[in-house]
Amino acid sequence: MTIAPEILERGRKVIDLSADFRFSDADVYEKVYQPHSAAYLLKETVYGLTEVYTSQIRSARLVGNPGCYPTSVLLPLVPLVKAGLLDLESIVADSKSGVSGAGRSPSLTVHFCEVSESFKAYKVAVHRHNPEMEAILSREAGQPVTISFVPHLVPMSRGMLTTLYARPSGPLTAAMVQDCLASFYRGRPFVRLRPAGAPPDTLYVRGTNFCDVGFVIDERNRRLILMAAIDNLGKGAAGQAIQNMNLMFGLDETIGLNQVPAAL
Amino acid sequence: MTIAPEILERGRKVIDLSADFRFSDADVYEKVYQPHSAAYLLKETVYGLTEVYTSQIRSARLVGNPGCYPTSVLLPLVPLVKAGLLDLESIVADSKSGVSGAGRSPSLTVHFCEVSESFKAYKVAVHRHNPEMEAILSREAGQPVTISFVPHLVPMSRGMLTTLYARPSGPLTAAMVQDCLASFYRGRPFVRLRPAGAPPDTLYVRGTNFCDVGFVIDERNRRLILMAAIDNLGKGAAGQAIQNMNLMFGLDETIGLNQVPAAL
Amino acid sequence: MTIAPEILERGRKVIDLSADFRFSDADVYEKVYQPHSAAYLLKETVYGLTEVYTSQIRSARLVGNPGCYPTSVLLPLVPLVKAGLLDLESIVADSKSGVSGAGRSPSLTVHFCEVSESFKAYKVAVHRHNPEMEAILSREAGQPVTISFVPHLVPMSRGMLTTLYARPSGPLTAAMVQDCLASFYRGRPFVRLRPAGAPPDTLYVRGTNFCDVGFVIDERNRRLILMAAIDNLGKGAAGQAIQNMNLMFGLDETIGLNQVPAAL
Amino acid sequence: MTIAPEILERGRKVIDLSADFRFSDADVYEKVYQPHSAAYLLKETVYGLTEVYTSQIRSARLVGNPGCYPTSVLLPLVPLVKAGLLDLESIVADSKSGVSGAGRSPSLTVHFCEVSESFKAYKVAVHRHNPEMEAILSREAGQPVTISFVPHLVPMSRGMLTTLYARPSGPLTAAMVQDCLASFYRGRPFVRLRPAGAPPDTLYVRGTNFCDVGFVIDERNRRLILMAAIDNLGKGAAGQAIQNMNLMFGLDETIGLNQVPAAL
Repeated sequence: MTIAPEILERGRKVIDLSADFRFSDADVYEKVYQPHSAAYLLKETVYGLTEVYTSQIRSARLVGNPGCYPTSVLLPLVPLVKAGLLDLESIVADSKSGVSGAGRSPSLTVHFCEVSESFKAYKVAVHRHNPEMEAILSREAGQPVTISFVPHLVPMSRGMLTTLYARPSGPLTAAMVQDCLASFYRGRPFVRLRPAGAPPDTLYVRGTNFCDVGFVIDERNRRLILMAAIDNLGKGAAGQAIQNMNLMFGLDETIGLNQVPAAL
Repeated sequence: MTIAPEILERGRKVIDLSADFRFSDADVYEKVYQPHSAAYLLKETVYGLTEVYTSQIRSARLVGNPGCYPTSVLLPLVPLVKAGLLDLESIVADSKSGVSGAGRSPSLTVHFCEVSESFKAYKVAVHRHNPEMEAILSREAGQPVTISFVPHLVPMSRGMLTTLYARPSGPLTAAMVQDCLASFYRGRPFVRLRPAGAPPDTLYVRGTNFCDVGFVIDERNRRLILMAAIDNLGKGAAGQAIQNMNLMFGLDETIGLNQVPAAL
Repeated sequence: MTIAPEILERGRKVIDLSADFRFSDADVYEKVYQPHSAAYLLKETVYGLTEVYTSQIRSARLVGNPGCYPTSVLLPLVPLVKAGLLDLESIVADSKSGVSGAGRSPSLTVHFCEVSESFKAYKVAVHRHNPEMEAILSREAGQPVTISFVPHLVPMSRGMLTTLYARPSGPLTAAMVQDCLASFYRGRPFVRLRPAGAPPDTLYVRGTNFCDVGFVIDERNRRLILMAAIDNLGKGAAGQAIQNMNLMFGLDETIGLNQVPAAL
Repeated sequence: MTIAPEILERGRKVIDLSADFRFSDADVYEKVYQPHSAAYLLKETVYGLTEVYTSQIRSARLVGNPGCYPTSVLLPLVPLVKAGLLDLESIVADSKSGVSGAGRSPSLTVHFCEVSESFKAYKVAVHRHNPEMEAILSREAGQPVTISFVPHLVPMSRGMLTTLYARPSGPLTAAMVQDCLASFYRGRPFVRLRPAGAPPDTLYVRGTNFCDVGFVIDERNRRLILMAAIDNLGKGAAGQAIQNMNLMFGLDETIGLNQVPAAL
């Protein structure tokens, strides 16, 4: 937010990987992060969840690129929430992230010997991406939505899987879920619906910009279970930023994203 | 079930690591597994969840030892369910298991290159341990309880973490949860309550018989989040069997379990 | 060798990933493997170590593509052996391979729980790639060369590092080694010489066709230590096959190899 | 060396895990480390390689406990060097260490994402444990011995494997090597000779004080190949210190070492 205003004044476009332009409401941002020094830009910023805000991104000057947790939570949920298929008070998001999500700075948390053979939750229900997810879900639902969000650390370098639990708002069949997701993502190359019985796997989106989505209807419990796998460094970060750049410059959204060489 | 009857007739005791004596109702067992050839023993079998059925185990001839998933799900839930603190229709169990839980038989599923950098769910809402958990929760609640259960595979050898989500049945404070769990497990060496802000971690129960339990109250969502970490080969299997043996033979329950050398 | 003759008769070219056409001497092949059913082709087969046999590969109909161990052993050694800089009786090759080198077939050897936290040698001094390396070194030296070769299994999916130890044949400086390697590989994009003090690392050739080579002169012991890192599935297998195909069809040798998407 | 003198003056014994009392020659120590402030103690210090200096350790006041690299290099070599079976100019030690050997301090080197899928050498032929190994080998050989030593980092938490290459000083059979090692370590519980064809594996000494030793005679190359596996935190550090303490206090050397609970 300290640099973007000047870039925009010069007539250039901005895709921001920080949280500074992910919120339209400065109050929410400031409660979670810090005072906002360019709040006047928030009324025009577009949330860079590519498949959801495609047309706005095409014409945007300023995009707040979402991170990995919101991307993996929102892509499966938004179509169903928009369609009114979910009980909005019932949503639980249990997310699991590879270690690169914690950044490159050395710390005991990312020491190989602390990570290997370790699985644990952290920032339970207090992660700062939680309000970001809720802001988007509320916007799409047209009413306030809160969700329980618990992130976990997985002993692997890259990859994120989110498992979502929600009650349907009424009778819900697998065909209805399938249709809702398939029609929302029709023609979009980076969201892939998994066939029944083959849940998404982080290994098979590694080094890509894909988000693989699967679901199961748990009839006995009257609950919909959704799963989404992304590479947290791809669709969960730089990959999605490139996809947004493609849209903002009138390019095919896949340019630069079909062959992603990946050392790690 | 093919061997146990003869052993019992000879006046010996049985601690069974299979599922054959985990159910008191043959119908439930047969729906999940196969015809039961010694169903007459089910009226006396004791479910070997040590801290929950301690007195019954002490006097049992026949114990059905629970596996890792039910142990990690039930130890945190049972005290709260017995105390009536939870909305019994609201329970979700999201479990994550190390690879040794899949057994020693070679298969593509446990191939190093398929596991490394892979995180995925499997048998979503149809795992055969699901009815076992529900049978015990129903017994303790005094009414039918079903839960949504999703197991996941973690790229590590040993360890299991279960994250549980449930709505309280009424106003619920952290002190109430703490008291309920602490009083239930008072004096029991192998269930350890984690301090607030320090969720359980599989690495710190590795090679032990401990079950570490932590919780967070998610006020905004009116939801209780519980976490339990065990070693799936310890408290989740052979460790608990030894603990049960200790009780059945009048020994201190910790004998043989405080120093567990572990190669893997 | 059962298929290649027919393909060649039809006027097509063959790049064989098996060992069948890696040897020019059928006796050596048969001692290590099995009776050779197309031995008449061995007088024309070219060993597909791309940077060493470039011109022969360009005009070859039949290429025997080397595997990972010989590639990582020979690329650093061949230039020095050809230049007569090494004591040919002194060579030791200590190789370390990721698990994908063992193939995709399930077995206890590749079970995640047997690999994780395990490091061990196997087929010590009896690996069947040993005679293959020696055949090539002997050809380039113009005299029989044998080397001690020990492969090891590393708990990682992809990557191979070989550490080579050899006595110089006479006074040898770092500049001489640097010059010998640099001039041999001048203009070749896939062999990269590492700067002094920065040994090759499998992580930084992962998912690529690169072979990174480094060396240290151990003055106190009058010994040259060479290190080479490759991706065993890239330069050590399919990558090098594609590089050879490029040469055989008059294409730039990098085509298809600069951006290698890699899930594992 | 700043604390030990005072402890000794008070009549207590010292087992030092630092390098300060591993050398009997202050000059060698000072060249590798720093000025020695208690050099007068070096004439009485005993090198704590338990099975080699057993009787001296029993009566020592001051023991310099060796670290992991020297332990894994010296235990297989010393008996053969003492017996005059090796060409002392021919020795190469290629060592591979788990990440815990790098200590607990956070750094990029031990970041999970830098370690995972990475295998590399470091401090090639300049590691400061090299002179320590050579001092002991020279003492046992009765003449100056130098060896080429290359340490490598393995993507695992615990464990070390060293592969040693040496020319025999004369005709050498497997039986001679077996006899030499077996008689040297007869009755010593923590050095285990592996049967032919079953090389040592770090996984099977994990969390223990064992050193597993195996060997192969590479006839074609007239070379002996030795392998030793230890847990770098066990026999390679604290385990051996406890073993030494047992000897210094007249206890059975296995006390406290047969059941080593190990979280990591």
